[in-house]
Amino acid sequence: MDRRSFLKTTALGSSAAAATALAAPAYAQGKRTLTMVTSWPRGFAVLDDAATYMEQMVGEMSDGQLTIEKKAPGELVGALEVFDAVSSGQADMYHSADYYFIGQHPGYAYFTAVPFGGTAQELTNWYYHGGGEELHDELGQIFNLKGLLAGNSGSQSGGWFRNEINSAADFNGLKFRMPGLGGKVLGKLGASVQNIPGGELYQALSSGALDGLEWVGPMADERAGFQEVAKVYYTAGFHEPGSGLSSSVNLDVWNELTPAQQAIMRYASMATTHYQLAETLANNGAALARLQSQGVKTLQFSDDVWDAFGKASAEVMDENMGDELFARIRTSFEESLATSASWINKSDGYYVQQRVRVLGG
Amino acid sequence: MDRRSFLKTTALGSSAAAATALAAPAYAQGKRTLTMVTSWPRGFAVLDDAATYMEQMVGEMSDGQLTIEKKAPGELVGALEVFDAVSSGQADMYHSADYYFIGQHPGYAYFTAVPFGGTAQELTNWYYHGGGEELHDELGQIFNLKGLLAGNSGSQSGGWFRNEINSAADFNGLKFRMPGLGGKVLGKLGASVQNIPGGELYQALSSGALDGLEWVGPMADERAGFQEVAKVYYTAGFHEPGSGLSSSVNLDVWNELTPAQQAIMRYASMATTHYQLAETLANNGAALARLQSQGVKTLQFSDDVWDAFGKASAEVMDENMGDELFARIRTSFEESLATSASWINKSDGYYVQQRVRVLGG
Repeated sequence: MDRRSFLKTTALGSSAAAATALAAPAYAQGKRTLTMVTSWPRGFAVLDDAATYMEQMVGEMSDGQLTIEKKAPGELVGALEVFDAVSSGQADMYHSADYYFIGQHPGYAYFTAVPFGGTAQELTNWYYHGGGEELHDELGQIFNLKGLLAGNSGSQSGGWFRNEINSAADFNGLKFRMPGLGGKVLGKLGASVQNIPGGELYQALSSGALDGLEWVGPMADERAGFQEVAKVYYTAGFHEPGSGLSSSVNLDVWNELTPAQQAIMRYASMATTHYQLAETLANNGAALARLQSQGVKTLQFSDDVWDAFGKASAEVMDENMGDELFARIRTSFEESLATSASWINKSDGYYVQQRVRVLGG
Repeated sequence: MDRRSFLKTTALGSSAAAATALAAPAYAQGKRTLTMVTSWPRGFAVLDDAATYMEQMVGEMSDGQLTIEKKAPGELVGALEVFDAVSSGQADMYHSADYYFIGQHPGYAYFTAVPFGGTAQELTNWYYHGGGEELHDELGQIFNLKGLLAGNSGSQSGGWFRNEINSAADFNGLKFRMPGLGGKVLGKLGASVQNIPGGELYQALSSGALDGLEWVGPMADERAGFQEVAKVYYTAGFHEPGSGLSSSVNLDVWNELTPAQQAIMRYASMATTHYQLAETLANNGAALARLQSQGVKTLQFSDDVWDAFGKASAEVMDENMGDELFARIRTSFEESLATSASWINKSDGYYVQQRVRVLGG
């Protein structure tokens, strides 16, 4: 809390200076800098990109009156300590994936991705127009956070393996990295599941501490270099069909912002998702082709394996239903997903099938 | 041009006043109002919604220093006159669909939708990360416009018909409303194609001036009331798989904005698409169910009809290839679409197939 008091003092000090020198904007209390701790090493594709776009958009739109100062893991706190740091007021906001924090509350899984859950579009539909944002804020009240989604990975790859997966039994005993509820699902299949921060994964896979891992998708995975140490890549996965990234803010800090600053933060988070997801999906195809040219074999899991994922996923989801808020979040999400999908499957889905049939490709 | 001069004078005048009364923001020249002419009657779902979100976001983020004043068709100019009005400086910006303006340049089709083109996501991938925005600006240079995409309809319905379409021959002689290059495709199949503004469609269908029409999708179509006068509804169409809406600005006006104001406009346009598309896709499923409960029969065109759409579409696209800029836009779009789709089909596409197979629905 000492650091927060220091920041407030600094903000007031710079406000007075600005009023003298520049004529401060009527809507602002002066220049304000928000410290954002992240779970991503600098330059990590997709994830640090999203954090960077959020930082840039807020700075540009506020003309530098509200700025975000990004801190990579280790600069202030560790990659998976960002939630507690912002909750306690040690930092002003974080950029991370909320499913890292299912230990704090299992409901956080829904604000990244859940097994057999929504695509990026379906998550967005629920978040803004199906009650998701309000539930994110309700969870946030417990931890003194204002929820913002800023970024999305798109549908994540099934992952990197040293050997092909020919049946669900091949997961038995496999040392595999997968966070969130997806990791619990692989645990049901007998895998030894670990949640290791992204910056440590290459080393863990190289050393044999891991037999395999999932990270994000071709663009991010290529940058991380996993193709150098594993050659079997499953392109679709059950576990993260469209992972939202979070850029949540300490609630006291949020409440001190002016309405215009809050608007800049909220709309910047939307624009970040829009812009960064498109970048990821515009680049994954070419990245996949480069991976293939380096000897990576791309596959899909068989229907039998997908059935095993489905059975274990249902068990994991049901295990958390004793928590009233988890149950409400799940119900809200599943109702939104069902109605979203009922149209999308008949329009976009059917259209793409016909486009592939008529034009090929 | 007289009106533009007047606006500039007013802006300078209010800037001086603000500096005295309020301490003007350092980055702004004072309050500025942009007149936005639209192609949508007030309250038209999806389309006027997008225009309204753009207006609200800009006003909120600028704390009222930059505001947009929306003018419905007829308040300043007609629905399809907005492009010329902004190009000439009669209005500051428009909200419309650029394929209404293929008469000005056929390349504008790509900034809404083209037959067998991209979904909303694929359009966004191209626009921001495949050269689309730059080409929009290059087209805009010809007409004195800065291009912004603000809104997307999602994949549009095949349309409303009095009778089922059993073969491509059923389009022969059909009086049908479809704008853009899609309309030219139906013309190849013998339809009598008309581009009628949205506000006049219900009357045209009721009176028999039209035999059928496509508008947007369940949420917008239900609001327009077409279910009262036609009962056959095709859910997927070839013609607009994810139509972008444009919120382009007179280039002289754009150049007078500060960098922070330009950032607010550009990121607001992204946030508008993100927020409004999600609203549309969150609501289409329930709207479709209501339409069905009112006796609407929902269908898909047969493979034979899709094949006829494909053949005629290829002919229409090739007819415009004599124009150098059209050809460059087409090549850029198709290259981006191919690489986007090469990944999306293997990830999101395959995932959704498996989700439907494992979970049903």
